[in-house]
Formats: sequence, C-alpha cells, structure tokens
Amino acid sequence: MSEHSEQARRLLDGISKAGGDPDAVAKRLETLTIETPSWGYGDTGTRFGKFHQPSAARTLTEKLEDAAQVHKYTGICPTVAVHVLWDFPKGFDQGVLDTAGKLGVGIGAINPNVFQEQCYKYGSLCNEDAAVRERALKHILDCVEIAKQAKSRYISLWFGDGSNYPGQSNISQRKRWMTEGLRTTHDKMTDDQVLLVEYKPFEPAFYHTDIADWGMAYIYAEAAGERAKVLVDTGHHYQAQNVEQIVAWLIDEEMLGGFHFNDRRYADDDLTMASIDPYQAYRIFFEIVTAEHERGEALDIAYMVDQSHNLKGKIEAMIQTVSIAHELFAKALLVDQKALADARAKQDLVKAEELVRGAFFTDTRPLIGYVREQMGIEADALASFRASGYEARVGKEREGKHGAPADASYA
Amino acid sequence: MSEHSEQARRLLDGISKAGGDPDAVAKRLETLTIETPSWGYGDTGTRFGKFHQPSAARTLTEKLEDAAQVHKYTGICPTVAVHVLWDFPKGFDQGVLDTAGKLGVGIGAINPNVFQEQCYKYGSLCNEDAAVRERALKHILDCVEIAKQAKSRYISLWFGDGSNYPGQSNISQRKRWMTEGLRTTHDKMTDDQVLLVEYKPFEPAFYHTDIADWGMAYIYAEAAGERAKVLVDTGHHYQAQNVEQIVAWLIDEEMLGGFHFNDRRYADDDLTMASIDPYQAYRIFFEIVTAEHERGEALDIAYMVDQSHNLKGKIEAMIQTVSIAHELFAKALLVDQKALADARAKQDLVKAEELVRGAFFTDTRPLIGYVREQMGIEADALASFRASGYEARVGKEREGKHGAPADASYA
Amino acid sequence: MSEHSEQARRLLDGISKAGGDPDAVAKRLETLTIETPSWGYGDTGTRFGKFHQPSAARTLTEKLEDAAQVHKYTGICPTVAVHVLWDFPKGFDQGVLDTAGKLGVGIGAINPNVFQEQCYKYGSLCNEDAAVRERALKHILDCVEIAKQAKSRYISLWFGDGSNYPGQSNISQRKRWMTEGLRTTHDKMTDDQVLLVEYKPFEPAFYHTDIADWGMAYIYAEAAGERAKVLVDTGHHYQAQNVEQIVAWLIDEEMLGGFHFNDRRYADDDLTMASIDPYQAYRIFFEIVTAEHERGEALDIAYMVDQSHNLKGKIEAMIQTVSIAHELFAKALLVDQKALADARAKQDLVKAEELVRGAFFTDTRPLIGYVREQMGIEADALASFRASGYEARVGKEREGKHGAPADASYA
Amino acid sequence: MSEHSEQARRLLDGISKAGGDPDAVAKRLETLTIETPSWGYGDTGTRFGKFHQPSAARTLTEKLEDAAQVHKYTGICPTVAVHVLWDFPKGFDQGVLDTAGKLGVGIGAINPNVFQEQCYKYGSLCNEDAAVRERALKHILDCVEIAKQAKSRYISLWFGDGSNYPGQSNISQRKRWMTEGLRTTHDKMTDDQVLLVEYKPFEPAFYHTDIADWGMAYIYAEAAGERAKVLVDTGHHYQAQNVEQIVAWLIDEEMLGGFHFNDRRYADDDLTMASIDPYQAYRIFFEIVTAEHERGEALDIAYMVDQSHNLKGKIEAMIQTVSIAHELFAKALLVDQKALADARAKQDLVKAEELVRGAFFTDTRPLIGYVREQMGIEADALASFRASGYEARVGKEREGKHGAPADASYA
Repeated sequence: MSEHSEQARRLLDGISKAGGDPDAVAKRLETLTIETPSWGYGDTGTRFGKFHQPSAARTLTEKLEDAAQVHKYTGICPTVAVHVLWDFPKGFDQGVLDTAGKLGVGIGAINPNVFQEQCYKYGSLCNEDAAVRERALKHILDCVEIAKQAKSRYISLWFGDGSNYPGQSNISQRKRWMTEGLRTTHDKMTDDQVLLVEYKPFEPAFYHTDIADWGMAYIYAEAAGERAKVLVDTGHHYQAQNVEQIVAWLIDEEMLGGFHFNDRRYADDDLTMASIDPYQAYRIFFEIVTAEHERGEALDIAYMVDQSHNLKGKIEAMIQTVSIAHELFAKALLVDQKALADARAKQDLVKAEELVRGAFFTDTRPLIGYVREQMGIEADALASFRASGYEARVGKEREGKHGAPADASYA
Repeated sequence: MSEHSEQARRLLDGISKAGGDPDAVAKRLETLTIETPSWGYGDTGTRFGKFHQPSAARTLTEKLEDAAQVHKYTGICPTVAVHVLWDFPKGFDQGVLDTAGKLGVGIGAINPNVFQEQCYKYGSLCNEDAAVRERALKHILDCVEIAKQAKSRYISLWFGDGSNYPGQSNISQRKRWMTEGLRTTHDKMTDDQVLLVEYKPFEPAFYHTDIADWGMAYIYAEAAGERAKVLVDTGHHYQAQNVEQIVAWLIDEEMLGGFHFNDRRYADDDLTMASIDPYQAYRIFFEIVTAEHERGEALDIAYMVDQSHNLKGKIEAMIQTVSIAHELFAKALLVDQKALADARAKQDLVKAEELVRGAFFTDTRPLIGYVREQMGIEADALASFRASGYEARVGKEREGKHGAPADASYA
Repeated sequence: MSEHSEQARRLLDGISKAGGDPDAVAKRLETLTIETPSWGYGDTGTRFGKFHQPSAARTLTEKLEDAAQVHKYTGICPTVAVHVLWDFPKGFDQGVLDTAGKLGVGIGAINPNVFQEQCYKYGSLCNEDAAVRERALKHILDCVEIAKQAKSRYISLWFGDGSNYPGQSNISQRKRWMTEGLRTTHDKMTDDQVLLVEYKPFEPAFYHTDIADWGMAYIYAEAAGERAKVLVDTGHHYQAQNVEQIVAWLIDEEMLGGFHFNDRRYADDDLTMASIDPYQAYRIFFEIVTAEHERGEALDIAYMVDQSHNLKGKIEAMIQTVSIAHELFAKALLVDQKALADARAKQDLVKAEELVRGAFFTDTRPLIGYVREQMGIEADALASFRASGYEARVGKEREGKHGAPADASYA
Repeated sequence: MSEHSEQARRLLDGISKAGGDPDAVAKRLETLTIETPSWGYGDTGTRFGKFHQPSAARTLTEKLEDAAQVHKYTGICPTVAVHVLWDFPKGFDQGVLDTAGKLGVGIGAINPNVFQEQCYKYGSLCNEDAAVRERALKHILDCVEIAKQAKSRYISLWFGDGSNYPGQSNISQRKRWMTEGLRTTHDKMTDDQVLLVEYKPFEPAFYHTDIADWGMAYIYAEAAGERAKVLVDTGHHYQAQNVEQIVAWLIDEEMLGGFHFNDRRYADDDLTMASIDPYQAYRIFFEIVTAEHERGEALDIAYMVDQSHNLKGKIEAMIQTVSIAHELFAKALLVDQKALADARAKQDLVKAEELVRGAFFTDTRPLIGYVREQMGIEADALASFRASGYEARVGKEREGKHGAPADASYA
C-alpha cells in the first residue's frame, strides 16, 4: 500500500469513527464533474496584448483534444463548454459532436457571443438601437437551436452590456429590454433545458453593467421563467463580498444554476481557481456540501471553469484547477456535520470554527489520489500529464501547422 | 433683487427656454422632505471612544428641540425618526408627541433596537437560541404597536445579525428564521404602514451579515409581504458599487421604500451626505428625478438622514446635509430630459454625459435660497443658524443640567 | 458683454473682495498646460476586443493632427507624449519633429514600451532571464537617446512587470533588478531630464506588480537618483485610497514628477478624467494650488492625460478632459486660502469644509470661457470642435486611406 | 509513538530527503516568539456596544494571568505588550514587573495612547493646537521613560490622527508636525530601543489619516532616525493589497520592525489571525522564511497580536491565533527553497506555484504538536486549555469581584 493510500485510508477511517459514511464520501468525489471551456485552451491575454504559446489550441478539434487530456488525467471532466461564435461559426455541426465523441468527451454548455462584434459597441439586448437588439436576440435563439441539436442542457448567457459614463444610458429602460429578451429566450427552450444568467460588476462596461450583481441576475432569472437560474462566476464580485453566502442563498432559493470557477486578487483576473484565496473557494464547497447533507442528495449544479491562462500552459492550468476543486470538495466532505450542528446549537463558536477550519487544513491530496485510483487513473494528475510529453509534442505540431500568430497591439 | 435671486431667476428662465416648467421645479423643491433622526443629535463615536460636545442632546426633548432647529432653517425637515430603545424606553408615550407638536415637528419612522443588549451577542431574529428570537420579535412587534399609536407610517428595521467567523453559523437556517420574523411583523402592521428592510455588508458582524446587500433585502421584503420595501443606506455598499443603479432597479421593481443618507470613504463612515462623493449622491437623485419625469408624479420614498456627527456640531452637520441634498436634488431637476432622451437615442454619449454632468456643475445654491425665501425662511440656512447663537446657548444650559458625560474606553 | 463674461467678471470680483488677486488667477489658468498622448488618438479596447472608429488616428502624423486640434480648441495642450514602439519604431526621426512643428505642437514625454513583445511575458527589467533584462534596458536607453535628440525633458516609465501566481517569482530579487535598471537609466540622462516612475497596483500582472504603489515608486526613484520622480496615474490606486494625500506628500517630499489623468469606477478603467468622481480630482488640484500658494510659485509638474477612449470620439474625449481639468483647477484657485487657514486654526471644521466645498460648487465654466477668450480662442471648446465637422471629415478620409481595421478576438 | 508524532516524523523525513535540515526547522519553530497584548484580554466591542464576558480581565494583573495561560499552552508567548494609559495609569510601576515575573511572563512593547482623551478630538502630534501637540509628545516621552525602566525594547506607536472631511486640515503641515514629534521621540530613546511606526488607512479618522499606508510609515521612520522601523498590522491595508509584497520590501529595505497580527474581511475587523484568509497569512511567513533562508539567520522582527475578541473567549482566541501562526510558519519552512529557485530560474511557474502551495496544503498540526512536546507541553493547546476549566473558574471569580460592567450605548 502506497503512502498516499495509507493516508487516504486514515482519512476514511476518521469519517467512520465520527459516524460518517466513508464510501459515500468517496462516491461523491467520483461523481463530481467539472466542465472545462473550449476557449480556455486557446491563447488569451489582457488589453495590453496576448502572449502566445506554441501548444495553444487554434481549432475546435484541438480544443477538444486538449479537453480530453484533462479528462484523461482527472477523470471528472467529461464535457466541454463551447462558444458558438468561435466554435460553431456556421451553426450546428454534427462533425463537432462526432469528433468529441471519438475523443471521449461530450459537448456541454452552449455560450452565445453578443459582445465582440462592432454592432455591440453600445450593448446587445439592451442596445438603444432596436435592430441591434433583434440581431442579438436572433443569435441567442440560434444558440438555443444549436443546443437542442447538440443535446446540450445549458444555455449560458454572459453579456458585456452596460455603459461607460454617467448619463450615457437609461438604466431602467435597458433593464426592461433585457427582461424581454431573456423571457423570449426562455420560452424557446425545451423543458429540460436550463438558462444560466451570469452577472459581473464591471468590464467591459465601466460605469454601469446591465447585470451587475447576483441580485440583478436573480430578478432577471425570476422574470424569465422557471428554468432560468443564476450562474455564479467566482471572480465576479466586489472586493470583500462574502461569495459563499450568496451561494447559500441561491441554493436556498432554488436559483443556483451553476458556476464559473476562477480566482482573482483585484478585478476579474481569471486566474486558476483557488490560486489566491483557497479558503474562500473551500467555503463555497462547504455551503454546497452542507445543503447536500441537509437534503440527502447531490445538488443539481453545473460546475464549469472559466479562466484565462495567459501565462500558464493551458492544459496544466486546467488540471491544477480541477485537482484543487476536487481536493477542496473533499475537505468540505470531511466536516463533521453532526458535531458542527451541536457546536452551533451551543453557540460554541470556537469549536464550530475549528471543525470547519480543521477540515480545510486536512490534506486531501492522498484522498483524491485514492479516488482516482478507484477510477482507474493515476493518483497525481499533474505529474502524469507532465510526464506524458503531450504539451511539447502538440506545440511542435501545431506551430508547424498554423505558423506563428499575429501580435495584437494595445493602441 | 439680491444677487442670488438674480442667479436663481436665470436658472428658472433657462428651464423655460428648454421647454421645461420652472414653477414645477420650484414646487418640487418645496415639497421635498427629509427626516432627521433623533440619535443624530446625541454624542456618537467610534469603537475607540466618543468625543463629547456640550450642546449634544441627552434627552428626547433636547433631540426634538434640535430637530426643530433644523426644520426652522431648512424648511423641509418636518419629522424626526425615533429609536424605541433610547427614545421610548417605556413604550408609547403621548407626552413625546405633545412635545414634538409644540416644537413644530412630527414623529417619523419608528426604529426598533435588537442589537445593543447582551442577549443579542449572536443575533436577534437569527439567533440560534429560540428564546432570543422571540424576545427580538416581541420588541419589534411592540414597535409596530408604538408606531400605530404614534401614527407613524414607517417601521424601519436594521439588524446587526451575522457571524464573525466562517463556520460559526448556519447561514441558510438563519435566512429562514429572519424570513419568518419579518413575515410575522408584516402581518401585524396596518394597511398603510410600510416595513423598511435595511441592508449592510458588514459591521458589527464581520464575516457574514444576515442582510448583507440589496439583493437579500429585496428577497426578504418580497417574502415578508407587499408593504415591505427596501431601505437604501447610501453608505452600506461595497466599494465601487454603482448605488444609483440599485436605486433605479428598486424603483423599477416598486421596491424602494426609503433612504438613509450619509457618505463614506472606506467603510460605513457615516459622514455627512455627499461630503466625499457629491457626484454619486447627485446621480442617485438623478435616477429618482428621471423616474418622476417618466411617471409624471413624485415617487413615494422616505428620505431620511442617518449619520454619526463625531466631530461636527450636530445641528450644523444636519443643516449641511439637508442643504446639500436640496441642492443636489435641484441639480437633478435641471437636467433637460428631452434633450437627454434625444442624445441617447442617437447614442451621442458625449452629449448625454454633458447634459447630466452640466446640471451637476450648475450652482444651485441661489435656487435653493430662492425656494427658501418663497417658503418664508432665510436663504442661507447654515449662516442663519450660526448667527443665532443657539449651539453655544444650549451647550451652556445642557452642560449645567447634565454635567460632563463619562468617558468610554476601547478596552 | 456676454452672459458668461458677466459671470466670469463676478467670480473675479469675488476674488478681489476676498483680498485675492484675480489677475494672478486668470494668469495661472493661462499658463497651465496639459499634455495629451499620441496613443489616446488611436483605437483602444478591452481584452474582449476593440471597437473601431473611422476617425481614429492610425499614423503618428494623424495622431499629431488630432492633438493639434485639441490644442487649437483648448489653448493649453501644446505638447504630445509619444510612445517609442508605436511612434518611433525605427528610432529617432527628425521628420516627426518637423511635422509636429508645422502642426503647432511639440513632442513631450518619451514613453518606452517593455510590455508588449513576447519576450516580456515574465517581465522586462525584472525578468528572471538576464538576456531579457538587457534587452529591456537597451530599449529604455535608446529612448533616453531619442529624448535627447527630440529635446524631450521627460522619460516616462511604466512597467507591466509582475507575476500572476503566489510563488512564481522572487519579489525581493526582482526589486533589486529593477533598482539597478533604473539607476543605469538615470545615469545616462542629461542634467535637465527627468525620469518619471509610474506605479500601478495590478494589470497586466495579477498577483504582484513590481511597482505596485506610490511607496514603491518613491523608493525606486530615491534609489535611481535625484532626477527621478514619481508619476501619479490617478486611476492606479486601491479603492478608497486618498489620492490627494499622496499628492500632498509627494509635493512635500519634492518627489512629484507628474500625472497621468483619467478616472475609473472599479479597476484601471481609463475613463475620461473626473467623469466618475470630480470632487476627488478637484481635491488633487486643491492640494497643488495650496502648495503653490504656500510657496508663491507654480510647481514644476508634468500634467499628462492617459485614457482609453473605447467608446467616445477620441478628440472630443480629450477636449472634455482638458476642459474639466481646467475648470477644476479654476475652482481650486477660488478657495479663500486666508479664510481657510483661519478656520483651521480655530478648528472650525464646518467652515473649513464649506470653503473648500463651496469653491467646488462654484461654476467655473464661465471663467474658463473668459480665459480662453483672453487667449484668443472660443469660449466653448467642445461646441466649437463639434461645429467644425473635423471628426466626420477625417473619418471619411482615413477610412478611405487605411480601410477597415481587422477585428481582434478574445480567445 | 502517537499518530501525530508519526505524521510529524514523516514531515521531518521529507525535509531530509529534499536536502533540508529537519532539526533546524524544529529549532526555528521553538525559537519563534509571539507577543500577546494586555488589551486583548479585556472586553472590546464595536461602536454599537460591547458584549461582556464574565472571564474578561479587568485589571492588569488579570491580564497578565491570562497571558501566562496562553504562554503555558503554546510555549512561545513569553512577553505581553502593555498599554500605558490602561496598564500604567500612574507611570512606571515596579509591582507590574514583579507580578509578571511571578507569572512567568515579561513586559514587552510599550504602547502610548494619544487617541482616547477628549483633547485628541482633532489629533495628537498633528493637532492644530500646539498645546495638544505638546501634551501628546509628553505622554509619548513618558512612555519612552517607562520603557527604559521596564527594560522594554519596543515603543510601539499608533495614532488615530487624521481628519473626517475634505478641507478640514492642512495635510502637509500635519505631516511636518508628525515628523518633528517622531524625531524628538527617537532622540530620547536608548541605542537598543526600537521605535515602531504603525500605519492604518482609516478609522477613527475617515477622510484622511496622517499615517495612512506603509509608504508614509516608511518616510516617517526614515526621517525619525535609524532605530525607527515600520510596524505592519496585517488588517490595515486596502482591499486587494498584496501585503506579503510590502513585507518583502520592508525586509529588503531593513525597515520591518514588527507585526500586529489579525485578520479581516472588509475593514479593520480585528478578527483572529488567518481566520478569513489563511493563505495570505502564510505568504507573509513565506516571504520572511525566504529572507531568513537567503541570509542564513532569523530576522529581528517583533511578532505581536492585536485583535478584538468581541465574541470569542479571549484566551481561546489568543491560543487559536498563536497556534495558527505557528502552523503557518511551519508550512513556510517546508517549502523546498532549492527546488523553488530552480523552477523560477526556468520560469516554470506551475512548478514554482505548486511548491509554495503544496507546503501550504501540508498539514503541519502534527509537527507543531511534536515541537510542543519537545518543549515539554501538550500537543493540542486549545484542547488542553479547554480541559483545564480555567475560563469558567476565573469567570466566576472575576464576576464576583468586579460585578457586572456597565453597558455602553451607541448614541
């Protein structure tokens, strides 16, 4: 028995001793799935420019190949979120599904793009120009159609809509236009599809953003219809905001649809998840696990990654992200919920805190290694991927095939 | 005709020329009312201690006397918000109403206190201890009763409830307890009473606050009943949050009940309104004025002050606050709404911005002076109050009567 | 006499009555100069893409033509900051100076670029790779040389150096490399040249930035040599930071070299100056004017604009910026410094505040109009420029000449 | 061998294998000392009131007794910071030293108080009134004298000085007064004393604070003299500020004098250290350990706690704090510095990050338990203290002796 197996065994024994069910913990860790986004495998950057990587994926096929690598080494990433403008530029394409299928991954959430084209300078569904509003709505409805054909459950909406200067726009009027567009979209969906409404306090709009916070996303989703839910991007909050409280509230309101995972220090930095504040990420999982404990079943939440890997190798960054999420979820499962409820009932706050914090400080890497071995894969995903030589190999291939990309300039 | 009257006349003429109604503008400025709080006339401080002022009001009568001074010089502060624990310590007291009546002011919003007593250490309506929850609810229901007897329309609720450490409390459970308490309170109110639900992101609870932001206050108010509305304290937001957008949304949702005016640089500093960021305060009024313009009538909003005058003379600080609010509201009324709608329709953002910003940079002090003269009071409220010698006089009287207050110590 | 002249006259009379010198005020407003940047006339955007404007300048000549327009209408923008990588791609070019001279503008600060090229992925002067450090230093020294030939007084340094993840870099080692590079640069400068060291808390580096705040820029500048000074970009601060205090400190330490003007709500939004918080911008000028009052002479500060006009017409945005800066500087000059000193000595804080705030709320647009007329130009710069039809005309010409620009994509 | 001993052994073996020195690690953990403050054992609160604890210390003797408990269970808290106004109200008192000596603790940093008395309403060393400036200086010099007699090495200065409203004060003038006061203080110190200068961005002053950030504290300390250093209170920063970078800079400049440990989510919440963001606290220790590794010796830094235990039992909170600091320091010592330097040299950022993050995710509680056992104390400090029944016992005694404390009211 390897050392990490021993340590995993010790953790699972501890769960038993505390009256918990170690098999249920291991099982939950096997059934957790996290979706990676096709755009996370291509080159991204800041407004000051992109730094290029030879191995960055340029085509959808390359993106799917890379996503399949992440699934191969982590075991919990069977689907890939796609972006219609970049991945289905000509509408639905059965070839994409076939390629994905061959690579062992599926197509996940469908993401429209109504922010990049010149016509969206002043917004999409909230644009003062009715023709632009219609064009944006048409694109979104086309995406619903693609989702149906691709058997995708999620339509995931993010808008850059907003204004840059006080006075520029009629905020209330734009709210009504957005509501109307979301309702129309909702009505075109099938009964088993889910509309995810994402919020973001700023960027690319700098003075006001039409869906700026969870309260706005909540009200829009309520107005759109019962299959509309809120999407929480972990990096889209004001500084000091208690994100796990928002998560707990959305769960309690049955309005949490999914996540975009990433981390940040200052703005919307799109760094790899938990790289800056792992305790906050853990506390989000802890609220989820607590709700699952109370309900006795797993919550129906779409866990997705949305990061910009400007400097890190894209596949490595994704494996780091998925691994840390897996480890943090495991920590949350280790909290002794019964002892915690007792401590809270007695208002023994030091004890309650230590129970929650103690689980965070427990090293769950051995446990994730154990779970991976149960799933028939290597314990250490990052080391195994690094050992495979994949990145260097495709870097050479792709550079040969596509040549060097053109540089962009800030001004 | 005095110089400021000439300048006011020029502004009113400008409104006419732009196709507006100068009489309606002047009228709106006369009908605006702002409520001052009884606790704003007593000594307050920080956790590091209070600095005492001889003229600070110690009794409710003194507070009402001071509030009457503010009304005397500004003309738009006919009511005083009261705080049950400090102002009605023994329940409803007709003598208070009589005193207020003699001084020419009325009793405004009724504010319960479920944060100061030792039993509320771990919360009030959200306390893990059912006995404390009941005690808090009883106090709030007593306040509803006092409000009925005092013919007060508003029950204004602020809670310090929350937790200081991750893990300390079950956030979702507390949410359900709060919802229940608010519903019960709402059901005891008469049909013309309004329940105001205030939010605050932190302090005195430092990790999580049970009503942390406008989205939470909105959901609580929706759950409590149709006469529950959100109260926006201008200083209770995350840094960089667009407060005027929240105001515009709450208006559009018919969920804006009232305001607590103050300003801050870092946290909840409770400085005098617009003392740090007057343009933001103006933009809030601009959203209100825009909605009033669209609807053709004044909105039903309770404008209230909630500040801590740790250093400034309390009456002077209040007169400054009311004057600046009056001036900013006047600026908002000067925006040429028709030209603005045109500029927005053409997406001429520079023009739209200049219209909104130009009104802000127009000096409305002469116009407020004119309005005051129409109301039969002096044009310059602060100068007139200073000239009256009131503060020095009551300082002497009150110090003689009450003696020097005891100092508090941080630790 | 026009109405705005009358109003200007009234303001100047008020200065006289308060014992001030109205001619000195008007003179100071004529001698104020603000430099605009060549890159502010080209298309810029966010990481999500650029929105193109037909009239955007593509060549340095076009940028100088546009800058000359700003000077023509505002009268106080005689120089243009240039960016070596984009404007002098082949080193010093006398033709540029000749073109500028013909257009009536001069070349101002020289800005190196050590952030855009692929080699700078992990930093420039702080790069772990010595070859990259040398390359960056060489580019900067080339810029010093260009500055000498162009008779430019300022070398203005901004670095994107930093790291994205904890652990990535040795922060202290990088500090020492940066210090060394700045010292070498300083030593190559002539005695009348000034090295400006800019700070920025984040972006494009997201975890740590090698010159993150004014304290770091100060220490670097002290170490580099006596002609190195700190450059304050108004948008490069933490939320809630008191920028005017930093300005007052740098002035007192004789370490304030210059400004980059812009504004923001959340991050480094590069909006037009004072568009979000005009009172803060005013307070910065107030600290400068106070120091000039104490010293009896104008401070030697390089006032420069650095904004991204993603949505606004670039020349219009620049004229707005310069006009508002001019107006705010005028407001600061209106503060009655003697009365203020008296109020402060008596610790009459309400009086002191009202003096400073009263000047802010005084409308100085007429005064700026008057000053412009004294300088022989139109009172209303923005209206005059709009009336000229310049933007539409060059939009047509430039689009015809250069064709439509290629779109950039986020991923 | 107990389980935690086995785990500790495994960690120490890992250090050996990586070429490190496990004995040096264990030794460093034994020699680390953290000072607790006398005021952390008394009742504290927010401006909304204090919640009282029966066991809270009211007298200096009780505070020393409690501090001795913390040292008894953690082994690394041999000294107690004292606060002159509260602890030495009548000047130096040999009895205090004798009492401390009997309890097995020593007197640590001496903290003046120039913020609580009414005369300091507008500041102390920066007060516009020369008499107040002199009074403040006299108190500080008295503290230097007390420090000499108590053989205390540190004079630790925190000022509440600042202003609440723009215009209230002359920021530059106040800077010069503060500089003068600090210089005078420095000159009265002996050669082996250290003057610690603390910074804080806000509270109790809300608009400007005379020592607002580390840059200001640095400049003041430089001006005061060579034995003046900067004190970093971990909670006194702007949101998103990279505190560990500031620490690394101060170390590199030989200007880091000491720490006040605590944590916060929003403002200066004074929560127990690392309770909100343990990874940030770890990164601070990592920068220290890195510098110690480079220099081959421990840095001369005063580690002190400064927290407000409003809800938690004060001794428990202190034991938690010291334990977590010990654990985090241990994690930092586990980083493989050689491998890290290699990864950085190769710009392998994923590897570098994993080395630093991997140490953080290693559970060091067993190692701290082992170190404690080496020191002859129990492995689990919190559990041992809880088992002792001390808190309940002194709660009863102290309540009997002092009676219930008077409640304070917000207004």
